[in-house]
Amino acid sequence: MSKADVKKVVLAYSGGLDTSIIVKWLQDEYQCEVVTFTADVGQGEEVEPVRAKAEAAGIKEIYIEDLTEEFVRDYVFPMFRANAIYEGEYLLGTSIARPLIAKRLIEIANETGADAISHGATGKGNDQVRFELGAYALRPDIRIIAPWREWDLNSREKLLAYAEDHGISIEMKREGKKSPYSMDANLLHISYEGYDLEDPWTEPGNEMWRWSVSPEEAPDQATTIEIGFEQGDPVSIDGERLSPASLLLKLNQLGGANGIGRADIVENRYVGMKSRGCYETPGGTILLKAHRAMESLTLDREAAHMKDELMPRYAKLIYNGYWFAPEREMLQAAIDKTQSVVNGVVRVKLYKGNVSVVGRKSDTNSLFDESIATFEDDAGAYNQQDAEGFIKLNALRLRVAASKED
Amino acid sequence: MSKADVKKVVLAYSGGLDTSIIVKWLQDEYQCEVVTFTADVGQGEEVEPVRAKAEAAGIKEIYIEDLTEEFVRDYVFPMFRANAIYEGEYLLGTSIARPLIAKRLIEIANETGADAISHGATGKGNDQVRFELGAYALRPDIRIIAPWREWDLNSREKLLAYAEDHGISIEMKREGKKSPYSMDANLLHISYEGYDLEDPWTEPGNEMWRWSVSPEEAPDQATTIEIGFEQGDPVSIDGERLSPASLLLKLNQLGGANGIGRADIVENRYVGMKSRGCYETPGGTILLKAHRAMESLTLDREAAHMKDELMPRYAKLIYNGYWFAPEREMLQAAIDKTQSVVNGVVRVKLYKGNVSVVGRKSDTNSLFDESIATFEDDAGAYNQQDAEGFIKLNALRLRVAASKED
Amino acid sequence: MSKADVKKVVLAYSGGLDTSIIVKWLQDEYQCEVVTFTADVGQGEEVEPVRAKAEAAGIKEIYIEDLTEEFVRDYVFPMFRANAIYEGEYLLGTSIARPLIAKRLIEIANETGADAISHGATGKGNDQVRFELGAYALRPDIRIIAPWREWDLNSREKLLAYAEDHGISIEMKREGKKSPYSMDANLLHISYEGYDLEDPWTEPGNEMWRWSVSPEEAPDQATTIEIGFEQGDPVSIDGERLSPASLLLKLNQLGGANGIGRADIVENRYVGMKSRGCYETPGGTILLKAHRAMESLTLDREAAHMKDELMPRYAKLIYNGYWFAPEREMLQAAIDKTQSVVNGVVRVKLYKGNVSVVGRKSDTNSLFDESIATFEDDAGAYNQQDAEGFIKLNALRLRVAASKED
Amino acid sequence: MSKADVKKVVLAYSGGLDTSIIVKWLQDEYQCEVVTFTADVGQGEEVEPVRAKAEAAGIKEIYIEDLTEEFVRDYVFPMFRANAIYEGEYLLGTSIARPLIAKRLIEIANETGADAISHGATGKGNDQVRFELGAYALRPDIRIIAPWREWDLNSREKLLAYAEDHGISIEMKREGKKSPYSMDANLLHISYEGYDLEDPWTEPGNEMWRWSVSPEEAPDQATTIEIGFEQGDPVSIDGERLSPASLLLKLNQLGGANGIGRADIVENRYVGMKSRGCYETPGGTILLKAHRAMESLTLDREAAHMKDELMPRYAKLIYNGYWFAPEREMLQAAIDKTQSVVNGVVRVKLYKGNVSVVGRKSDTNSLFDESIATFEDDAGAYNQQDAEGFIKLNALRLRVAASKED
Repeated sequence: MSKADVKKVVLAYSGGLDTSIIVKWLQDEYQCEVVTFTADVGQGEEVEPVRAKAEAAGIKEIYIEDLTEEFVRDYVFPMFRANAIYEGEYLLGTSIARPLIAKRLIEIANETGADAISHGATGKGNDQVRFELGAYALRPDIRIIAPWREWDLNSREKLLAYAEDHGISIEMKREGKKSPYSMDANLLHISYEGYDLEDPWTEPGNEMWRWSVSPEEAPDQATTIEIGFEQGDPVSIDGERLSPASLLLKLNQLGGANGIGRADIVENRYVGMKSRGCYETPGGTILLKAHRAMESLTLDREAAHMKDELMPRYAKLIYNGYWFAPEREMLQAAIDKTQSVVNGVVRVKLYKGNVSVVGRKSDTNSLFDESIATFEDDAGAYNQQDAEGFIKLNALRLRVAASKED
Repeated sequence: MSKADVKKVVLAYSGGLDTSIIVKWLQDEYQCEVVTFTADVGQGEEVEPVRAKAEAAGIKEIYIEDLTEEFVRDYVFPMFRANAIYEGEYLLGTSIARPLIAKRLIEIANETGADAISHGATGKGNDQVRFELGAYALRPDIRIIAPWREWDLNSREKLLAYAEDHGISIEMKREGKKSPYSMDANLLHISYEGYDLEDPWTEPGNEMWRWSVSPEEAPDQATTIEIGFEQGDPVSIDGERLSPASLLLKLNQLGGANGIGRADIVENRYVGMKSRGCYETPGGTILLKAHRAMESLTLDREAAHMKDELMPRYAKLIYNGYWFAPEREMLQAAIDKTQSVVNGVVRVKLYKGNVSVVGRKSDTNSLFDESIATFEDDAGAYNQQDAEGFIKLNALRLRVAASKED
Repeated sequence: MSKADVKKVVLAYSGGLDTSIIVKWLQDEYQCEVVTFTADVGQGEEVEPVRAKAEAAGIKEIYIEDLTEEFVRDYVFPMFRANAIYEGEYLLGTSIARPLIAKRLIEIANETGADAISHGATGKGNDQVRFELGAYALRPDIRIIAPWREWDLNSREKLLAYAEDHGISIEMKREGKKSPYSMDANLLHISYEGYDLEDPWTEPGNEMWRWSVSPEEAPDQATTIEIGFEQGDPVSIDGERLSPASLLLKLNQLGGANGIGRADIVENRYVGMKSRGCYETPGGTILLKAHRAMESLTLDREAAHMKDELMPRYAKLIYNGYWFAPEREMLQAAIDKTQSVVNGVVRVKLYKGNVSVVGRKSDTNSLFDESIATFEDDAGAYNQQDAEGFIKLNALRLRVAASKED
Repeated sequence: MSKADVKKVVLAYSGGLDTSIIVKWLQDEYQCEVVTFTADVGQGEEVEPVRAKAEAAGIKEIYIEDLTEEFVRDYVFPMFRANAIYEGEYLLGTSIARPLIAKRLIEIANETGADAISHGATGKGNDQVRFELGAYALRPDIRIIAPWREWDLNSREKLLAYAEDHGISIEMKREGKKSPYSMDANLLHISYEGYDLEDPWTEPGNEMWRWSVSPEEAPDQATTIEIGFEQGDPVSIDGERLSPASLLLKLNQLGGANGIGRADIVENRYVGMKSRGCYETPGGTILLKAHRAMESLTLDREAAHMKDELMPRYAKLIYNGYWFAPEREMLQAAIDKTQSVVNGVVRVKLYKGNVSVVGRKSDTNSLFDESIATFEDDAGAYNQQDAEGFIKLNALRLRVAASKED
């Protein structure tokens, strides 16, 4: 498929400098029509103002959509059922938004008769992979244009020069984005990369962080909340039922105000390099802790352990962009199978960066049995003599082996 | 083997009420000689005073030993190479001390010609399993006497009555142990079970905790330290080389002073029940975070991921008491194989319950390559065009499948 | 619960010597009413004649049931979706029948108001565990009586003496069972243990085997058949649709006639010992090979690999008796999720012990794409240049590491 | 690095048509010196005659080496310790030879001052990945030239035309290679791809197979042999100690003569497509079965199960070309750790395609204990009452869960 074959392309468009340049570049290089797609996934900026910019760039088909509820309900919550963490630290905030964007790009391409999609992710990162694997899985014949892999605008200076040459207002740089960092945000998190983070020995300044106060700045009084769970998903805070997006937003506010959810890590990208990233995931950090606590009371031991063993694979699949792959769906089926009993309430205390579980209960599904666990007389609920046989048979293979060593 | 066959038994003896009763009970019930073994594994109490109590009880062979260095070097550190956590929360503080005690019990039995060992763990808990699996693996013909599974002293009242009847001073209750909780301590942690913890919805009072101040009580100023690693093990703090036990002790002090390392969880015991436990692991909490950070810079991605996937199995093995089993040794071989490159320094900030990594470096083994990861022009270190082929071939199976669905 | 509390017990009753003795023993020892349950799970013997024996023993509630279709449809086929093999060799023929028996025992106990169940499995084997774990999972308060663990009839001689003393006809020994081996059979397999198999260096005589001819005795002409699959389950042979049990029966006949499905292994029992077992699984051996071949054409690579990695766990769960446990159900959900595409036909050649796949096709779900795989010009279906980027990025982490080693 | 920068390239050279064309093409296109490397890895053809062809092509530095012992000792045997099978069927015959070739290519490049290596693998297959990942892992700055990905000779016709145009004798096609299949051979196996195998429903003709007779043609008398193992590796046949390569050669002869080791499969390539392959692995098929049997007697249950669970990952790593990657080395360390006890003798019967284990013994390491496993009175070696506690505690979590469901 040559450049000339591309008639119409759907672009994931933020309205910022980079994707504005891409609009122009696509129009020039591919001589094709551009459809823009801008999603509100909870990044915390108005998306409607993007319309004017798109119109000014000559776009006729402009898609601007609020995907926050779908994002949290169908992507974030299923992922949290798995207690997913990548490399022990990263809550996958960016990773989990990409498949949804990819899905909408393809759906819009199908609706508008476009033969290609395009995105502003660079050739060094994970996001290109996530967008493209998602898109290919949903429409195998789609043409994907990744300008950062094609053009030679491989530095900020060249990019600005191109903008100037082509009459693209540098003011287009989003107001808030006067940060020297490369950032990405959605309802689950905000991320920072580049600039002084490129030295992993350097601590970023406190002014980098945008969603949370530092623990030092957080209130001296703890905040205690109760999160209600149904079938593994959070449904209420302090008894108030909330929609998925509203609930996560509320947790973000609570977490951010209490200095919760900052992470500063070196991670391994799918494309083969290590990179430094900083993340704020206030609500997600609370949710992970609370979900684990809810499971600790209601989930069978071996199901819980199996989940723990499968989790790194599951997290890696999402990190690498395989949301729409059969192996992710297979693991999801296993995870979801366990969650019907994960019902109840968890009480967590938020204090200066700490999320502490201070209570958990489940009227319907608690497997905690005081009469068995008690240190006092259990009235026959548990027969201590059983332990001898249990140990003896578990030890048998070890004893036989030891006796052969003599 | 009948009771009469037992001639001499080695007892894990703390000098407290329970094991003092056991001494008497063994002498009466089994009419056998009792050898006591008391180990300093860093529980924070003098062990030497135990000698007088043992002598008073008529013991002729009294073993009192400082095992702290061996404990940390040969048990705690190997375990931390694996980043082991049980059920997402528990750092295995009690679990990891048991095999060492089991090993010494057997060695002393061999030295003293004893035919049995005994311990004070109840029939409901994990510790009986850990002691006994360890013992059987090291000496398959050992006779093990677990009084809690044999006698009918199944409540505190009956125990006190027995003590009174047999002239055992209730003063023997260790001074410090005026706590209503069942506790266990060693250099890695202190644990609390029972009493009001038996309701998982109840938060324990702050007076329960012994090793750490609460985050609220911790200093308003952060403490920043640098931990040096060699081959995966910590070897220095702020440049000062320390022995394993000294280093962990120092981390405990730093962590405890900054409100770090409290955990309040519901866990699944190997014997089949859920139980509530509270733990303070100040140094271990710091160490886990720092070790992960050191690995993030120096360890290959796929080795790190394999470690993450194997970790829950490894942690479960230790929790369940299989330290001396071939499958634990097999996993240890895999883990240790990866650690030769885990060298460098991690800087962590300790503040009111938070352990934040704020820097990591490795002169010899950093795999972080700024020239590749940079957002700016990389002078050809990485070819962005390579990403297209990478994505295309990774997507191929998904595309073929999608094309067959039409 | 004391002996006197048992009012009525449901016994898994074969009508053979052992369970006939158990009937008498239960009546004498427990002074309780006995309900017998005899299932046809395809063991190849008439079950109806058992009725007269039960009546003669004074049984009033006699359950005799044909469970073959349920057995194959709900137990055998789901297990084969997983390609389950225990320890690389054992197709789990005995293991998979036990949960079904346990389920019916409990259901009958519920129907008849019984408070206990009983079985004839010994205290050394896996079957006691499988029966009892299944029963406890379905009715936690059930009382289970395992005579072999209670009585002292621990040798064949004592058993025969007991029979004689209590007027139990030794003729009751089933006609066919003149074998010196301990045997178990159902529609999936027949097993042999004991006697000369207790020396793992000894080869059993050819007369031991009952379901198959030896490869030497099998026909000199190969038999080729086509097995049709739908959603991972076999549904037809040579185009003829067959019910699950009929299909497996037919495969058993075909396999047995061609010397297929014998296994002679040393296996690890859940109770801790190694044991020698010989098995004939003619139909299952064919089915496993065919199912794998069907998957090879239709299943996504990563889903297939995930299945392969999870399989040993799944097989172990079934071997150990955890069919009704959440972790088995969780894995089953994952496995079943993948099978919707496993549709098509596999052609296998049966010849003197060999099962050779000689063709596989799927009109609807083949992922084999000749246009891509061809060694000849593929007209652009696959871009060989993509491989360079694929390799380069996959190699990146290895290259960075190697460059640091210098 | 441009073409002009390549001064000297080491080519994996078979002396056949394809690599002869590559010599010429490298000389023309890259204007560089070519060093040829031809290895005897047991493919069954003389390698020395290649020298004359290389000289005729103007090569000055010609490496011809017998690597058979190193191949079997350091690659094949370590892999068989893991019981490695890819996708349930493939014994990795081609995969395991590639890293050795890659290693020698790099070593020769280092010795001869070459800056590049080259190979004749196509851009569609796995071998390019295996060669190149191996090479990059050992010398990160190596330049790799893969002619099949660069030139446009993408069909047999174009290749023959090129040969004719450049005076390359088509007679160069190896005598034996009059097969229409694409083949690869080494001491472990021979493989066939392409031609009529491209339709997975088609059975290849018997004339395709080269290393084994068909089961039908095999002798009517079985051959029984005894294979001795030390630390997991085979060391003798019928008591005669043999070097690794000699032993495998002997097993190949025995297997081939008895119709053993043919496989006809559809497999998933790392580059994303499914492909059909036929393989003959006579000795490897015997060895796998025998090694498993040796382990069944001597290996601890849980170590064996852990090996089974890790095996698919290990096999996939080798299939995909990651022999020299840390994650393979990590798994190898785990596997090797278990093998010190795998000592003894296995007796196998070879008959018309069947490999049947008919005996296994180990004087030093057998864990099979007749006194425990016996069906007869065991004189107290095993206490059947222990089973009750074992079952009760294993059932506890299931019972608690079931009681909560009511």
